[in-house]
Order: sequence, then C-alpha cells, then structure tokens
Amino acid sequence: MFDPVEKLKEFIRHPSVSTDPKFKDGMRGAQAFVTELLGGMGFKVEAIPTPIHPIIWAQRGGDPSWPHVIIYGHYDVQPADPLNLWQTPAFEPTIRGNRLYGRGAADNKGPLLANIAAVASLLEKNPKIPLRLTFLIEGEEEMGSPSFHAFLEKHRDRFRGADFVFLSDTALPTEQQVVITCGLRGLALFDVIVIGPKGDLHSGLHGGVLRNPIQALTEICATLHTPDGRVNVPGFYDEVRDVEPWERAELKKLGADEAAYAKFLGIEAFYTPPGFSPSEAIRFQPTLEFNGIGGGYQGEGTKTVIPSRAFAKISCRLVPNQEPGKIKELVIAAIRARAPTDVKLEFADQHHGDPYIVVPPGRPNTPPNQSPILARAFRATDAAVTEIWGRPPVYLREGGSVPIIADIKRMTGLDSVMFGLFLPEDNLHAPNESFNLDVMRKGSATIEKILAAVAAG
Amino acid sequence: MFDPVEKLKEFIRHPSVSTDPKFKDGMRGAQAFVTELLGGMGFKVEAIPTPIHPIIWAQRGGDPSWPHVIIYGHYDVQPADPLNLWQTPAFEPTIRGNRLYGRGAADNKGPLLANIAAVASLLEKNPKIPLRLTFLIEGEEEMGSPSFHAFLEKHRDRFRGADFVFLSDTALPTEQQVVITCGLRGLALFDVIVIGPKGDLHSGLHGGVLRNPIQALTEICATLHTPDGRVNVPGFYDEVRDVEPWERAELKKLGADEAAYAKFLGIEAFYTPPGFSPSEAIRFQPTLEFNGIGGGYQGEGTKTVIPSRAFAKISCRLVPNQEPGKIKELVIAAIRARAPTDVKLEFADQHHGDPYIVVPPGRPNTPPNQSPILARAFRATDAAVTEIWGRPPVYLREGGSVPIIADIKRMTGLDSVMFGLFLPEDNLHAPNESFNLDVMRKGSATIEKILAAVAAG
Repeated sequence: MFDPVEKLKEFIRHPSVSTDPKFKDGMRGAQAFVTELLGGMGFKVEAIPTPIHPIIWAQRGGDPSWPHVIIYGHYDVQPADPLNLWQTPAFEPTIRGNRLYGRGAADNKGPLLANIAAVASLLEKNPKIPLRLTFLIEGEEEMGSPSFHAFLEKHRDRFRGADFVFLSDTALPTEQQVVITCGLRGLALFDVIVIGPKGDLHSGLHGGVLRNPIQALTEICATLHTPDGRVNVPGFYDEVRDVEPWERAELKKLGADEAAYAKFLGIEAFYTPPGFSPSEAIRFQPTLEFNGIGGGYQGEGTKTVIPSRAFAKISCRLVPNQEPGKIKELVIAAIRARAPTDVKLEFADQHHGDPYIVVPPGRPNTPPNQSPILARAFRATDAAVTEIWGRPPVYLREGGSVPIIADIKRMTGLDSVMFGLFLPEDNLHAPNESFNLDVMRKGSATIEKILAAVAAG
Repeated sequence: MFDPVEKLKEFIRHPSVSTDPKFKDGMRGAQAFVTELLGGMGFKVEAIPTPIHPIIWAQRGGDPSWPHVIIYGHYDVQPADPLNLWQTPAFEPTIRGNRLYGRGAADNKGPLLANIAAVASLLEKNPKIPLRLTFLIEGEEEMGSPSFHAFLEKHRDRFRGADFVFLSDTALPTEQQVVITCGLRGLALFDVIVIGPKGDLHSGLHGGVLRNPIQALTEICATLHTPDGRVNVPGFYDEVRDVEPWERAELKKLGADEAAYAKFLGIEAFYTPPGFSPSEAIRFQPTLEFNGIGGGYQGEGTKTVIPSRAFAKISCRLVPNQEPGKIKELVIAAIRARAPTDVKLEFADQHHGDPYIVVPPGRPNTPPNQSPILARAFRATDAAVTEIWGRPPVYLREGGSVPIIADIKRMTGLDSVMFGLFLPEDNLHAPNESFNLDVMRKGSATIEKILAAVAAG
C-alpha cells in the first residue's frame, strides 16, 4: 500500500493545467501518474482520446452480479496565476501544519487520491471483494468538460450495468460536518445585444432623435426582476420543484449566521425571493443574473458618443425540474416582447446544463423505484460518516453547477453520490490552494467503509 | 496679398496635433506660421503662454471709437490616425478637384485662413479702414480648450471695448446654403457607479441572495426617460427656453428629409420628445444620454460572476437657460431617490459647459439692449451672404457644444457671430479631411464684405 500523502505530492508535481497548451508535458505526466498508480493496483487502464485531453477509464471487472461503482475525478487543475501570491511554488508540494499546499491539492487531486487510496486499502485487505470498480478520470473539468458529452454518447455502453457514480468534488462547510450533495443547479446562458444606429454617433449632432441602445438595454433588463426579488418572466417558475420540509430541516442543521454571511459578501441587505432565507434561496430557487454589461465609452474621462450597440451577458441558474432550453426561450421571448420597437435585438447562445437532484432513501419523496444498490450506498455513507466523523452527514442541494452529473443521469440513468472533501479555506482556484490532510485520511477511511458495505450487500 | 490656397498648404504642412507631445515641432511650426503671417499684415502678435499651448493674440489697434472685432480660430488639429486610411498623406496637402486634402484643412485651418485672407485683402484695399481687429487663435481646441477659462479670467481686460466675436468653426449643410449658428447646447457630464458586494462573486455559490449591481444600475437608468422620449427627472425642463415661431420657420427653410436622415443614422424609427421633429429636437431640447455602460465580464464566452460594481457614463446636452451645475444636481438627486437601498452609489464628476444663444436683430425676441455694432454685423452678414451665395443665410441653433462661446459671453459679455464654412462631406476628425476651395473663396469674399460694412457703420 502506497503512502497517500507522498503520492499526492507526486501528483501535484505534474503541472496539469488543461487550458494552457504550455502545460502539455504536465498533462501527460499526470495521465501517466494515474495510469501507473491504477495499473499497479490491478486495474485495466485505458486512455480514451478526446479532441483535447484523454479520459482515463480504469476497470476492475468481475462477476456481473457484483455491484459496479464508477468513481469520478479529474486530473487537470486550474492555472496557478498569479504566481507571485503563492507562499511556496504552486507545483512544489509543501506541507505546513496539517495541510499540503499546491495547485490541485484540493481540486481535485487530493480528494481523488483519497478515493484511490480507499480502493487500494480495500483491495489489499480483501483482494477478492465482490465489487466491480471503474475510475473515470477526465482531463478537461477546469475547461468546462467540453468533450464529456460526446464521450458519453460514444461510450454509453460502458456504463451499462453500473449502479451509481461516486465522487469527491464538492465541499464540506467545516472540518466537522460532512455534506452529501443531493442536488445541483443547472445553467442557461446567453447574450443579448441591442443594436441602434449603424455607427457610433456624436451626441451633440444627433442626441435627441433616437433611442440610445444603452437606454433600451437598461429598460429591457430592468423588467426582468420583480421588486421583491423574483425573476419576472412568464412561466419561469412553472417547473420549479417544491422544496420538501425535510430539505429545509437538513439545512437548519448547519445553522445560518446571516449577519456573518452579509458581512462576508460585503452587502447592505439580502435580496431573496419571498419565502426563502439566503441559504435556501441559493439551493432551492432559480436566478437570472447579469454577468456582464457593456456598451459605448468605458475609459477615463468622457466621450460624448451614442453607441451603435450595447450588450448584456445573462445567466440563469436553474433548479429541478427546469429545462435550460425552455427557460432560454421564455426569457428571450420576454425580452422580445418588452424591447422598444425602435432598436434591433440579437441573441448569442452560450452553453447550458441541466439541474440535478438525487433523493436519499427513506425520504417522503424518494422515488419508489430507486435502485437498491444506490440506496445501500447512501445508507452506507450515512453510517460510515457517523462512525468516523462523529455525526451524520447533512443532505443538501447546492447552488453551484456540475453539468456532467446531470448529463450522466440523462444519458446513462446513473445517479451520483457526492461526498465532498474540500473546505472553504482550501483556496480552490486561488493562490495557496491546500488540502487538509486530516480530512484526506478521514475521507479515505470513510470511502473504504462505504465501498466495503456496498460490496457486502 | 498672399495666395490663400498656397498659404493653407503651408499651414497644413505643420502637423499641429495638440493632444500628442510627439507633435511639439508641428505645434511650434503652426504658431510661427500664424505669427509671421499676421505680423506681415501689420498685426502686433503676442504668444500668450498657457500651461499647455500658447494662445496667439494679434492686434490691429486704432481709435477707440472704431468698432472692434475679435476673430477666433484655432491652429491645432485632431490626430490623423488611422493613417493607412488616407489616400494621400495627412500632412502633405494635395489638391484633387476643387478640394484641398489634409488634416486640419477644414477644422480649422482653411476657415481660419479664409478669415485671415479676408482681412489681408480688406487692409490692402483700404489700409486706413476704421476698424480694430484682434485675432484670438488658440492651440487647445481639439483638447477641449482646457486653458481657455483661465485665460479669460486672467486677460478679461483685453476684451474690454470689443464689440463681438466672429468665427468660422461651424458647418454649412450644403455648398449652396449658409447657416449662421445662433445657439449651442451646453453639457453636464458625470459617471454613476453602483457598488454591491465587496468582490466579484460566484453566481452559483451566491446567486439568489443579493441584488446584482448591474441589475440595480439598469433599474436606475431605466427610470431616467419617459416612454414618450422626455427626460424623467423632476425640474429638468424648468428653465428650458421656449422655442420662437421664427426659429421653427428658419429650420423649415432647410427642408428636412426625415426618411433620408433615418437611413443615414441606420435606425428603425425616431424617438423624440412630443411636439418636436427630429431636427427641432436636436436644436431646441435637452437630452440625457448614456455614453457608456460597463460592469462584470465582457469578453468572449461566459464567466458566471456577480460583479462587485457597475457604472454608467451620463451626459446631458443642455439648452438655454439650463444651468449645468443645477441639472447635474437634479439628475443625481433623482438617481439617489430611485436607487435600491441594498447597493451603494458613487458619482464621479466630469466636465460641463453652458448652453449659448444669440438672437439676430429684428426678431420678436431680440434683446432690446442689443449692441448696435453686433446688430450691424448680423445685418452685414445677411446682406453679404445674400449677394455672394445667392440666398440669405438661415439662422439656427445647433445641437453641438462649443463651451468657449458661452464662456466668452459670461466672462466678457461678448456675443459671437458664427459663420460656418465646413461641409458635412469634409470628413472632420476623420481620414481624408478636405476643404472645398470654392467655399473658401466665397467665404473669404463674404467675410471681407462683412468687416467692411461693420467698419462703414
């Protein structure tokens, strides 16, 4: 059995920045590292090519009657810039206290290694355990997984007979409290472009005869919310899933210090839809946000121009059971209906992703046909977390989006058990990223117990 | 008597770009050119220093009982970029057809030389003419005349006993029709900045709990106009001067092809305040325009951020008798009153300028105490234009702003006779600027007659 901390150091030393072609060697090194590690554990490892970075598919087969768990992770990392803000170099792993510092330590190399170490330990103790295992480790997560959808289409057969997906790529609120993520918001993104005169105009020579595209854009955008904080688009909420009382009760277990949260954000007051606290609104309600707006002169001083166009970048976070395509249509229809007729509109479609929800067993709204092995995995997770962390996990939907989880569900029927291992203080995507080695050890021990229980039936 | 076209070529060869320190030699060359030319005509020439570029003050004195005309012009030009779009080099004057091409040909070197040539011809024919003349030629007009206000304050005495200012720095609508500009709009400019959370936020982790600053900004901006095209700020129109029937009648003489104008602008429909045609709205109504808006992510693709701030750059074009300072206060007060309370506001003051109006003699609203010499100048202009151009001038207020004209009026009491000589097709501030040499000749002959008539009394 290898030393997980030493292996994590080795993994971090490969600078596997997927978005930057300069790091081709780091990507290859990280792939080779994973291939060698899993190969050494007896897995049959394939590197499945994609247009960008290959997906590692590593199998431990077995009798088709055995449960089959697919463990997801990613070997790529965010860029390390700005490098000068790192206390120790991003790709030279360094231990300070109970933390290992380095780019990718928490996202996702540490949590992925906690899973691999759990499997290694399990197989060492019980080489004949009746459990099929597949590691599915992609190299484009930090790019938005552009090749994943086509991979699922092409390799759908590989998922046949699998029981569920397990992953550690979500967060713990504190070192004491495990959260099992049971839902993710979806996304629908597009740009709206308002087009006025054919060129920028002098505001003295022509000001007063036409509607300024910036004015038209603000008039459109200002209609998209109600004063009380709901999205003001007909039909927007039609498919929004009701929040179960047990979901609100779970959230209450976390405790919510709203004053501290407002201070953290630096805002004067919250602005949530009626009936939802801030922590509920994030998880249970959809949004329409303006991620960017632009038009005309934005430099120092002044330029008295009437611009020919202005744009806003809009994103909706969606909750089950909203459909991104339908929501985009509704919002665009509302914009078209409300736009003044003296300007032209264009829309630029951006990406989208479905929302996702999985209900643990034993809840009032658990699907009656839930897979028994998925239910067993949830029960095993609850028991193992309670034993090792001293208290049961909390089951929560989250506000963020991991579109591949909904894609896997839609295209293969598989649900996911999301057992997060990174902490808010781990500095994901930021300088001085680190991973808590106590969390790594406890996480790995927990995962080993979960897998053993799934195999035991 | 010099050849005005040859002199204009010589003037253009000095690349007097005031905004770019690289053109220091060109600025010095243009100053020396003007100094030598006017000195050769018997003027006492001074270069009055300012913090940036000196002002040329050239006098032909005489008996204090003689009329005193101050002729304004500027020796600086706009940058010539983009150079690759010029058919012949910007600072190598070239004649094609009846046009002289080169940066500054129309703005303002050609029109200024038409004035200087008129004076030269007048003095050659009548060296003892009872007329005091001062050329006031600045070098910062294309920078917004930043030193002019302080110059007026410091040298107010120099203007004592003068009768009016004469200048050719406005436009003719066509080669056949002279316009005497009788009014200019003022300006009041500022930025509004809406501040939300203390840093940019992830729209998944935090979206749904706070008002996005872009949303707040659009909600504010959308309140600033009424659907029918007026500025929706209490008190905004209180001081707006009524439009005289004769002003609308003058404008009708030009004829207005609204369909052609809409096509030129490239707009679907006009959007003017009720009761004003497009050409009236530009001249007689104030505006509130958004010259720029910005916030959040503006690049390709998407970034799902809630930005910490957003801003708009606002300018109001003002008509007599609106005061820029008061208008700024009214608009800012309206914004404060309408802004949601969950964001913070900041304002950045930008520059401003007063509107200007001068009423020709014999109109129902001509001031009863109008200077007889100013009245004489207007009548002389009307007669000379009618004789040389075959039809009388049209007297119009314009939509643009030349803040120094109002500054001169406020600080010295002097009105201006604005006899424009450039045409829409002259490409001011653009590549391939040119000046129509027929207009130059006719303009110069007209100015000579005007000055002779002012002197004759």
